[in-house]
Amino acid sequence: MVGEGAYRMMQDNRAELEKKVGIPFEVVRIAVRDLAKARSAPSHLLTDDPFSVVNDPQVDVVLELIGGLDPAAKLVETALLNDKHVVTANKELIAKHGSRLVSLARDRKLDLHYEAAVGGGIPLIQPMKHQLAGNEVLKMMGILNGTTNYILTKMFNEGAEFSTALAEAQACGYAEADPTNDVDGFDAVYKISILASIAFGQQAPFDQVHREGIRAVSKADMFYAALLGFRIKLLGIVEPVENGRILARVHPTMIPKDHPLASVNDVYNALWLNGDFVGDVMFSGRGAGANPTASAVIGDLIDVGRNIKIQGPASAIPYGPYMEMASMDDLITRYYIRVLATDRPKGLGHIAMTFGDNDVSLAAMELRPKSDSNAEVVFLTHPAREVAVQRTLSQLKEQGNVQEIASCIRVEA
Amino acid sequence: MVGEGAYRMMQDNRAELEKKVGIPFEVVRIAVRDLAKARSAPSHLLTDDPFSVVNDPQVDVVLELIGGLDPAAKLVETALLNDKHVVTANKELIAKHGSRLVSLARDRKLDLHYEAAVGGGIPLIQPMKHQLAGNEVLKMMGILNGTTNYILTKMFNEGAEFSTALAEAQACGYAEADPTNDVDGFDAVYKISILASIAFGQQAPFDQVHREGIRAVSKADMFYAALLGFRIKLLGIVEPVENGRILARVHPTMIPKDHPLASVNDVYNALWLNGDFVGDVMFSGRGAGANPTASAVIGDLIDVGRNIKIQGPASAIPYGPYMEMASMDDLITRYYIRVLATDRPKGLGHIAMTFGDNDVSLAAMELRPKSDSNAEVVFLTHPAREVAVQRTLSQLKEQGNVQEIASCIRVEA
Repeated sequence: MVGEGAYRMMQDNRAELEKKVGIPFEVVRIAVRDLAKARSAPSHLLTDDPFSVVNDPQVDVVLELIGGLDPAAKLVETALLNDKHVVTANKELIAKHGSRLVSLARDRKLDLHYEAAVGGGIPLIQPMKHQLAGNEVLKMMGILNGTTNYILTKMFNEGAEFSTALAEAQACGYAEADPTNDVDGFDAVYKISILASIAFGQQAPFDQVHREGIRAVSKADMFYAALLGFRIKLLGIVEPVENGRILARVHPTMIPKDHPLASVNDVYNALWLNGDFVGDVMFSGRGAGANPTASAVIGDLIDVGRNIKIQGPASAIPYGPYMEMASMDDLITRYYIRVLATDRPKGLGHIAMTFGDNDVSLAAMELRPKSDSNAEVVFLTHPAREVAVQRTLSQLKEQGNVQEIASCIRVEA
Repeated sequence: MVGEGAYRMMQDNRAELEKKVGIPFEVVRIAVRDLAKARSAPSHLLTDDPFSVVNDPQVDVVLELIGGLDPAAKLVETALLNDKHVVTANKELIAKHGSRLVSLARDRKLDLHYEAAVGGGIPLIQPMKHQLAGNEVLKMMGILNGTTNYILTKMFNEGAEFSTALAEAQACGYAEADPTNDVDGFDAVYKISILASIAFGQQAPFDQVHREGIRAVSKADMFYAALLGFRIKLLGIVEPVENGRILARVHPTMIPKDHPLASVNDVYNALWLNGDFVGDVMFSGRGAGANPTASAVIGDLIDVGRNIKIQGPASAIPYGPYMEMASMDDLITRYYIRVLATDRPKGLGHIAMTFGDNDVSLAAMELRPKSDSNAEVVFLTHPAREVAVQRTLSQLKEQGNVQEIASCIRVEA
């Protein structure tokens, strides 16, 4: 998909590209999985052996647009060892091996760019490395996955349940048959790890990023979010916490309806960043799709081409090895909690007392009877410690009048 | 102001900057207008002779943060001729002399960066030159002036008239005592010329950019905008028109309330861009102020420093000499027109006929009696030629029942 887009962009805008770079690009060889499939590129350029591309002495720059680790990791490494510049759109590869591969490129005086790995066509990575680089990043929050944003938008606007909205997303081609990578937050975890690595100069271990997907978000939560003046988005969030470490997390989040991220809907992505000097800045656009992703790939290719033309030194900016990250126990934020409870004397009092016993103070409460004998109770807390909230929830589960902790969604104000 | 911000940023984030660049920055000399004024920088660095800075053999990089043409133009030119890299925040200088100065820098293998000249802290210029450079730009629309956006936001939210909102902006320090540069659109013209030059690779002559400020926007227009589902923003707009030329214009514009630019309020700036591959992309943030502007200046300085460290060739990307631009006669868009008319038999019919006589077709009309004898009539047209609309307005002015063409605001959909 992205390879097809990148090829078309190089053809459609050929004259402009040559003008901007100062030298022409020529596509030498294209590796595809299925040689029989119809493509824009002439068939004599095609091969089904990707290693023939990265080993071809004629090739100066490799665009790795396969995705996944195998064989992409080996291909990128081989390309670099063969002294070829690399442009990749592969978030998993960069999230897992970015520090090592960028250092390898740098040592070999090669470029390795990956603007398309996060936010599709939206310029994010290079602006953070360059124009915003003087700032201490105080917080980043991003809508980094278009599929889940589409589903959440549908749920909010149409009062649809998750399963219905997912089915629609699949019908429109916005979600895959197996939607795990998107709806369970893996995709967003890779992306926020990359952004954290750039912002804080060391590789953020993706497996220390807290991950929750959107399967548990329900129509009822959307209803209460609207009632309380919020929207629910799957956000990737990174910030330094009290102990000086960096906390990175991906989870459904309630944000005020007038926050700039709240009106980023459908398949659009966005990154909101707060820096000590720049203040708030936000980038938004199409975070996926063949053409927007190709836009970022070709942008990187232009920079590689300019560097080849002027015989400049490698411009890839390396970041350090793994940082030790903060855990969710270090989080302090506000929480929205929805509880199904039987309607007993002192029942609500017991629930409210449990919050207080754990030092979790309440900012708002909404009680709605569901039947003669039970009720839905929604709590909005003041800023509280994650550990204290989790302890509260465990204790509530043990209480006789609590039927279910229906949901717990973190709130960013 | 910006100089003070840049100095503080270099001090506050000194360790991080050195880590990111690989070499430390040292402030050698600071030229100020008034040596007596209290400043963050130690007094032994200060001088009131700016030429002593650009002629100092110890200086590698000059940050030009004075603004205006005199003596800034001479200073930047002298710095370049003395083989110093330059970072400037000066929109007027770049709008008027950008092509010449960037070429001079390039010829002398020097960097000349000016990210801060447009959009303050928001990364705009470099992302257009790099990450988005593979796209053919189909349209750009920007809120490029914080003062006017603050005034228009106040007018919309509080139903204030222009003069009241301007007075408040002046009281808050968002507007100057002489607000001409902002409210009459000069500032936005410089900025949109720079963006047009980058997007289309040739210097856009700023004096061929159509300019209308916001003085004529009234409370009544804000009322009708809301009624029709629009917001009014002062936009800089650039796009290729039918004859292949580039049309650039700054004027109050009605945009649909769900357009991403519509919710960019107060002193925030934003640029919305549509490219042939990337689709829609938007950048927003603080477009002015000492700290956000310093963020962009220091971002440029970091790139200059990295280039000095690796002894790379100049990375400034030049653009060609002046392009011939399209005129407003080539514009086709929708129009909102508000007319005060006396209430006579066939009066409205005559007005409506005049639009039709000029091939301007109407999409919506709203008539509100103002008194027993006159009424306010608001028209929203379908896309029409600017010349046809201007001819319509001239003819309407001659009609006996038309008291006043109270306003004509272009609409972008």
